Amino acid sequence: MPENDPHENATLSSTLQLAMELMRRPSVTPDDVGCQELMIERLERLGFHIERLPFGDVENFWAVRGHHGPVLAFAGHTDVVPSGPDVLWEYPPFEPRIDDEGMLCGRGAADMKGSLAAMLTAVERFVTAHPDHDGKIAFLITSDEEGPAIDGTRAVVEHLRETHERLDYCIVGEPSSTNELADTIKNGRRGSLGGVLHVKGIQGHVAYPHLARNPIHETAPALDALVREHWDGGNAFFPATSFQISNIRSGTGATNVIPGELEVIFNFRYSTEVTYQQLQERTQAILDAHGLDYRLDWTLNGEPFLTAEGELVAASLAGVEEVLRQRPELSTAGGTSDGRFIATLGAQVVELGPLNATIHKVNERVRAADLDTLSDIYEAILRRLFA
Amino acid sequence: MPENDPHENATLSSTLQLAMELMRRPSVTPDDVGCQELMIERLERLGFHIERLPFGDVENFWAVRGHHGPVLAFAGHTDVVPSGPDVLWEYPPFEPRIDDEGMLCGRGAADMKGSLAAMLTAVERFVTAHPDHDGKIAFLITSDEEGPAIDGTRAVVEHLRETHERLDYCIVGEPSSTNELADTIKNGRRGSLGGVLHVKGIQGHVAYPHLARNPIHETAPALDALVREHWDGGNAFFPATSFQISNIRSGTGATNVIPGELEVIFNFRYSTEVTYQQLQERTQAILDAHGLDYRLDWTLNGEPFLTAEGELVAASLAGVEEVLRQRPELSTAGGTSDGRFIATLGAQVVELGPLNATIHKVNERVRAADLDTLSDIYEAILRRLFA
Ligand SMILES: [Zn+2]
Ligand SMILES: [Zn+2]
Repeated sequence: MPENDPHENATLSSTLQLAMELMRRPSVTPDDVGCQELMIERLERLGFHIERLPFGDVENFWAVRGHHGPVLAFAGHTDVVPSGPDVLWEYPPFEPRIDDEGMLCGRGAADMKGSLAAMLTAVERFVTAHPDHDGKIAFLITSDEEGPAIDGTRAVVEHLRETHERLDYCIVGEPSSTNELADTIKNGRRGSLGGVLHVKGIQGHVAYPHLARNPIHETAPALDALVREHWDGGNAFFPATSFQISNIRSGTGATNVIPGELEVIFNFRYSTEVTYQQLQERTQAILDAHGLDYRLDWTLNGEPFLTAEGELVAASLAGVEEVLRQRPELSTAGGTSDGRFIATLGAQVVELGPLNATIHKVNERVRAADLDTLSDIYEAILRRLFA
Repeated sequence: MPENDPHENATLSSTLQLAMELMRRPSVTPDDVGCQELMIERLERLGFHIERLPFGDVENFWAVRGHHGPVLAFAGHTDVVPSGPDVLWEYPPFEPRIDDEGMLCGRGAADMKGSLAAMLTAVERFVTAHPDHDGKIAFLITSDEEGPAIDGTRAVVEHLRETHERLDYCIVGEPSSTNELADTIKNGRRGSLGGVLHVKGIQGHVAYPHLARNPIHETAPALDALVREHWDGGNAFFPATSFQISNIRSGTGATNVIPGELEVIFNFRYSTEVTYQQLQERTQAILDAHGLDYRLDWTLNGEPFLTAEGELVAASLAGVEEVLRQRPELSTAGGTSDGRFIATLGAQVVELGPLNATIHKVNERVRAADLDTLSDIYEAILRRLFA
């Protein structure tokens, strides 16, 4: 690792220094490259009890401080998505810097090493001011959120369930903000259900269609019906359930052959108004109604979760308002996150982090001052719950 | 070339000897391997004037005998489709033999070296009996019917058109028979029109469908409409026009990405009740009605042709009936043939040849006695037209 520039150290906040130290480590999923040891070292100094929880080639840890009362965990990931070729970047992706416009540039600035640094410095200030705080403060950190996510938060959550660890509140540091810092807090996520459909026909020659059964022809009206289906109307927290076909493929390549099979891959993003079992049954009913000879394989990527209200949502809204003088919106839009696993423990879960405009892209960046503000917000939430 | 077995020569008809001589030459498209020279040698001996018409790597010839009146051409091809691995064959594909059940076995037996031999011996007998026959007898032979078919019959027909050669009747030796020899005469073929459709959408993430436009979703109802469309009702000679999708493809392979483009390949087999221009216009109207952003590329493989009636059909029906005491059916079913090119000269065209059950397959075979009978039929037709 390159050393910090001493000049930088002299002028940068503790949060930005830590963010940049984490960003210098090229921790592409599932490699952690020492990010977690850096966090652990500082948490141990604060009196946290550390439990390292490696699974497969994924590093995870669970850290906790305090002796009684409700548990608030900060959750996040040290891994980042690949950066692609350096030449596409304005600055090298793993040499973080703050540019002339005050933007912290580099892979992980927004997703989510900036959040990790803001959490840690918020906890440092809070614990220093309130060494005998109420409740228990915890960290749930993984090095595989961007990858298969099997040996990461999911496995840690199973471990916590088995050891009867209590978890009341969880703040996930995912970049939830859209246009301004903390304009949006995610208090839930839609479910994700995947399907792979194989429709069987009978291969033949286009000149003799009566001897063949064209699976493209037979499936076209069923796909149209699936696309038109009103799955639900959503609710106050969730948009309507959405069905999308991501892949379709049939044909031998020859232009005079009627194919014998069709493959369709689709995905539901679904609200709490339906269950995945209902979606499966209704999909099958539509396919059956069209008389298809098919096989359908399902993958449940995540059930929907929702923290409609409660102490954590109240503290988060009030904490943001205290720091920014603006009330954030609650939203459940967007892709899945590790919150889906944590919510299964019965915890209240919110996601609150920086702007997501540049995540997973080249020239990932975040306003440097936003990370200091984010740290203040995390500290304000801590105070409201545990001071 | 292996020599004929003198024992075989002693017992086999002239037609079967010639068929086997042609079959010993492995003339896989576009190689002729001396088949045409073998035919030319015998035609010259009969007084035919020969015009060799090589185009590209394809060998063709046009041969004609006689000085006045209508022209009857026998048309055919010396090339055969590949045989595949010898081990799949009961006998080596280019070592023809007559098996215990009287079947002539080997590549080209049915498609169409057997027909070529039958034509040639029929003409030999007819010319010997009627050296001053009416009309002109011709041969139009190519070595590329099974391949791209660009430098074959199509090119010869263009040459005949440019030199104002007259062509009144044409018997194509394609294997037209289904269950019994000469049970079917093809007096036309459907047209074939191909289309490649590209529908443009907007790529995106399945979690944010409002930012994307899914071309699979947009195209599904249009495909359903194309499949349901009643293009025509056919007529006395042609079945209804048929639309078949042979290939469909869309998707990045990723299950969480809405694709940006869809490709659909389709084919019309169409009757004389519609034109290819009408099919193109009606297809575009359906796509337009569904508001698709698309590109559509057409390939006209062949316009339909039909010889509804006339001297050739009458002579062919009567010739078969004279030899077999059974009247054949007229049919326009099946794939395209070189008849589509010849018909553009204004000629009456029929296809009449052996059973097509084994063509393009391993263990291609034809009843040996059928080739002698086929030669008799060709001779009977010649007599009815030119004796
Ligand atoms: Zn993330
Ligand atoms: Zn053929």
